[in-house]
Amino acid sequence: MPSSAPLALTLGDPAGIGPELALSAWLRRKSERISPFVVCGGRRVLGEAAAHLGLDIETASVTDLADVPARFENALPVLDGADARYSPGDPDDEGAKAARASLEQGTVLARDGRAAAVVTGPVSKARLASTGFAFPGQTEFLADAAGLAPDAVAMMIAGPSLRTVPLTIHVALADVPETLSTELIVSRARIVAAALQRDFGLSEPRLAIAALNPHAGENGAFGDEEARIIAPAIAQLEAEGLLVSGPHPADALFAPRARATYDAALCMYHDQALVPVKALDFDQGVNVTLGLPFIRTAPDHGTAFAIAGKGLADPGATIAALKLAGEMAARRR
Amino acid sequence: MPSSAPLALTLGDPAGIGPELALSAWLRRKSERISPFVVCGGRRVLGEAAAHLGLDIETASVTDLADVPARFENALPVLDGADARYSPGDPDDEGAKAARASLEQGTVLARDGRAAAVVTGPVSKARLASTGFAFPGQTEFLADAAGLAPDAVAMMIAGPSLRTVPLTIHVALADVPETLSTELIVSRARIVAAALQRDFGLSEPRLAIAALNPHAGENGAFGDEEARIIAPAIAQLEAEGLLVSGPHPADALFAPRARATYDAALCMYHDQALVPVKALDFDQGVNVTLGLPFIRTAPDHGTAFAIAGKGLADPGATIAALKLAGEMAARRR
Repeated sequence: MPSSAPLALTLGDPAGIGPELALSAWLRRKSERISPFVVCGGRRVLGEAAAHLGLDIETASVTDLADVPARFENALPVLDGADARYSPGDPDDEGAKAARASLEQGTVLARDGRAAAVVTGPVSKARLASTGFAFPGQTEFLADAAGLAPDAVAMMIAGPSLRTVPLTIHVALADVPETLSTELIVSRARIVAAALQRDFGLSEPRLAIAALNPHAGENGAFGDEEARIIAPAIAQLEAEGLLVSGPHPADALFAPRARATYDAALCMYHDQALVPVKALDFDQGVNVTLGLPFIRTAPDHGTAFAIAGKGLADPGATIAALKLAGEMAARRR
Repeated sequence: MPSSAPLALTLGDPAGIGPELALSAWLRRKSERISPFVVCGGRRVLGEAAAHLGLDIETASVTDLADVPARFENALPVLDGADARYSPGDPDDEGAKAARASLEQGTVLARDGRAAAVVTGPVSKARLASTGFAFPGQTEFLADAAGLAPDAVAMMIAGPSLRTVPLTIHVALADVPETLSTELIVSRARIVAAALQRDFGLSEPRLAIAALNPHAGENGAFGDEEARIIAPAIAQLEAEGLLVSGPHPADALFAPRARATYDAALCMYHDQALVPVKALDFDQGVNVTLGLPFIRTAPDHGTAFAIAGKGLADPGATIAALKLAGEMAARRR
């Protein structure tokens, strides 16, 4: 891709905080050294959001991505695309369709190499589903757009304090043990290690594998998944030459000294991965989809309909997602 | 109890870091404003540990607890009791027996009101069991010593950033869902609320109840324990006049803004409670047993045999446990 390829930022649900996050991030483009980005559609939404919030921001309509860097200096570049009215806190079908179109547009741009990365704004899964969107979430859509099965990609949450990868996500806690397998751990660990090398500049990435049970099961006293499922995965990964440690009792794994010993922690379930990142890095967590042929990041939070349009949304995670996407893109060039 | 009753600190396993933690805490008694404490037995262990670590500390043998405050100024008071040789990193039967005797001595002193509280040093459960100790851990022993059933007490982990209470502890993750019940949540919440009032000076304690499943099950999409077990408990507790909120998705519950909205979080399983405390407050987490008629705190870490005697042990949690015990005792007077 050309070194000047911009980042593509999708709008998210127009009734959520996505529009104001795009505006806030653009305002901080210089102080935060954010690479030029273009919003995929939503020029009306963004203009109305700026007026609603009293922000003196011009948007610039662009049709050629090559124009983005120059326009980015003085205006928020917006690619021609779907649009909607701005109705903060009041999601509707028109907005859901615009959110979906923006996601599809940004994904195609990144997949085809015309954008350096796609950074996705927050959507409502329920609202997206109402448009006939056939995927449980944006990540599954992105995998499909890349011609990959859902399990060929891995979700990483990256914050300033640590990076975690949940191996199971939207699964009831009672179903987590039976969902885990040695193969799952091995395949995801390979994806994570490759991504840390390619996109994070870590030539010998260190992976820590969390235990499932308290105290890692204390030698089988309460739970045997460590010996039965996790340890064989670690042995296999080590045999492949990867730097892998574990299974680590989860409560010890996220303490400050432990965090210094690995580059990413693979976690057995959603909250095991998300609790420490949100406790330590709440406003700066970035969701990164690993294993895609293109780069995708996102702020790790939802639409926040309840505070949309009130000027309360913290753009920290969106700025972190844009910056991380820019860094990853620079490493691929 | 007399206002001058000292805190009783138990030795922990003599081969672990307990002895050096007692010494380090005593050295910081003035800068940290630690109430006078006496170590239950182990004068030989402590003397040899001080020599081994090159610490210029005198121990003072006491038989009358009334002498502790005066002796505490210039020497580490040690109550006549069991003893052992100092063999850091090399646990043996003699040490395990001394650890057990120290625990029993401190517990009786607190139970009988002669000590203001018992602060327990770290023991090895396996080593204790080898002496015929019939309890899974110190907490169960303490409940029994108070004439209570194990489920009449609750373990709280208190750090500077937050307080959490795991409702299930040494249970395989797969068995957690079936171990939970509305009755369990209600009975533990009552214990926690009463302790926060009596010992923590919170006249209207606010309890947050964590969800079990990711996103609190997202309206039953993955897991129904929130609606089936947790919500009825919250309704019952509210009907009793307690300030209770939830079920909260765990990943949101420990973020900085959320932590400001409650005084203690009740968690469904061990790691849900321990991960955030250790991530945020690793070296300062205090284990408090709630529901006992007497006060018991402990540093929330193990014997650390691997670093014992090397001068590497951080006394932060022991100091925090002694200080919290002193504060709790002052509120009871």
